[in-house]
Amino acid sequence: MTEQERQAVLEEGERLDDIGFGGLRLIQKPGEFCYGIDAVLLADFASAGKAGKIADLGTGTGIIPLILSHKTEAEEIWGIEIQKDSWSRAVRAAKLNQLEDRLHFVCCDVKEAAEQLTAGSFDVVVSNPPYTRAVCGMQSENRAKMIARHETTAGLEDFILAASRLLRKGGSFFLIHRPERIPDICWHCRNCGMETKEMRLVSTNRDVKPSMVLVRCVKGGGNELRFRNPLYIYRQNGSYTSEIQRIYERNREKNQSG
Amino acid sequence: MTEQERQAVLEEGERLDDIGFGGLRLIQKPGEFCYGIDAVLLADFASAGKAGKIADLGTGTGIIPLILSHKTEAEEIWGIEIQKDSWSRAVRAAKLNQLEDRLHFVCCDVKEAAEQLTAGSFDVVVSNPPYTRAVCGMQSENRAKMIARHETTAGLEDFILAASRLLRKGGSFFLIHRPERIPDICWHCRNCGMETKEMRLVSTNRDVKPSMVLVRCVKGGGNELRFRNPLYIYRQNGSYTSEIQRIYERNREKNQSG
Repeated sequence: MTEQERQAVLEEGERLDDIGFGGLRLIQKPGEFCYGIDAVLLADFASAGKAGKIADLGTGTGIIPLILSHKTEAEEIWGIEIQKDSWSRAVRAAKLNQLEDRLHFVCCDVKEAAEQLTAGSFDVVVSNPPYTRAVCGMQSENRAKMIARHETTAGLEDFILAASRLLRKGGSFFLIHRPERIPDICWHCRNCGMETKEMRLVSTNRDVKPSMVLVRCVKGGGNELRFRNPLYIYRQNGSYTSEIQRIYERNREKNQSG
Repeated sequence: MTEQERQAVLEEGERLDDIGFGGLRLIQKPGEFCYGIDAVLLADFASAGKAGKIADLGTGTGIIPLILSHKTEAEEIWGIEIQKDSWSRAVRAAKLNQLEDRLHFVCCDVKEAAEQLTAGSFDVVVSNPPYTRAVCGMQSENRAKMIARHETTAGLEDFILAASRLLRKGGSFFLIHRPERIPDICWHCRNCGMETKEMRLVSTNRDVKPSMVLVRCVKGGGNELRFRNPLYIYRQNGSYTSEIQRIYERNREKNQSG
């Protein structure tokens, strides 16, 4: 890509990042919300099964659809994002990576997802929603970052309801959130006809308590949870654990052999 | 205690066990259900706060009330047990340990607990209920063990409903169960007006996934869970971890100094 081509696709203050999966590139704006390891963990967690049609609720600049386009054979991956600037970056990244036939982005509230897309038609829905509850009178100099991190425009129950409406019966909803929200997740999912079937806690290392939880819920599933062993990000010497290396390197091997 | 006194309190096939807390003794019948480390962990977990009045749902031969009589200053500890033989052992153990003024045992179904005791009057309710779901056509040569381990006479929701009815507003329900039942626990508790406020996973050691979870729910509590660091039972060399040693030895120190 020439500097001229790069300039043509980027707007002021934006940056082009190689995400490390199949040479795919993402458009981000430093200072606003940039994706973290949670998006990578969730995409890997959600890529295990077969799915023809996937939706990502609160997709931001499209990191999860990009990783899933590489890790799965899904024919259609739809991303929903309420913030116009982030949505615009996701749309341009799809074009830049020549994935317009598989990746589709809609700028709307997650509460309208079932109307904007086709309800009951998705095999998989994923979401890495805002972790923090909205607090009355809360202010932030950076509105984009605030909406991405706090439940300002939609709460956890809105994401769960949207997932349930989009999924076909037997379809899976993959979610990453704080362990503190486990009761809310179990409660809202069951209220929406989804059952929590798999749970995996994520800790920075073996010496600290879990900071995230990966959850899989199934629409119309029976109530038997599979509780998996914890996922640790770092070893004691500060390097990535072999599992995190696998999550990243598996793709490198795929690239080399492919 | 002379052999004659021992024979006077024990029935055929029964055994007198020193539980290691304040010299207290428990009557058990080997071959039927005997208590495990889960009862000890739950009693320790539940003994943190102050409570005047405690109930134990599905008390068996009374192990948890006995430990709590030692670990807390509670004035009244009530145990509910549906099996007459186990209940009889709990009653005799209370007398044997000269704790009849503090320990009271009622032989009834957990579904009748709120009628048999005083609803809304308890500061703390604890329960180590059967872990395994009842399966149609299930049979066992040992009926006593089967009722203690399987949800034959009462299910998890019955224990949770009974706890909620017995507790005063703001009172705590302490429960130990399998991690696979976390969604059911969160769901039924919230349905009964209790909120899951604290959760602690228990693993045999650091290399295996959790096999139990300690849960504290509060009647009328707000929905913010505190997710604690995991509790490990054994170190890699097979000896108890320092925390398990503390749970047992703290009492020994108390005995020595008291």
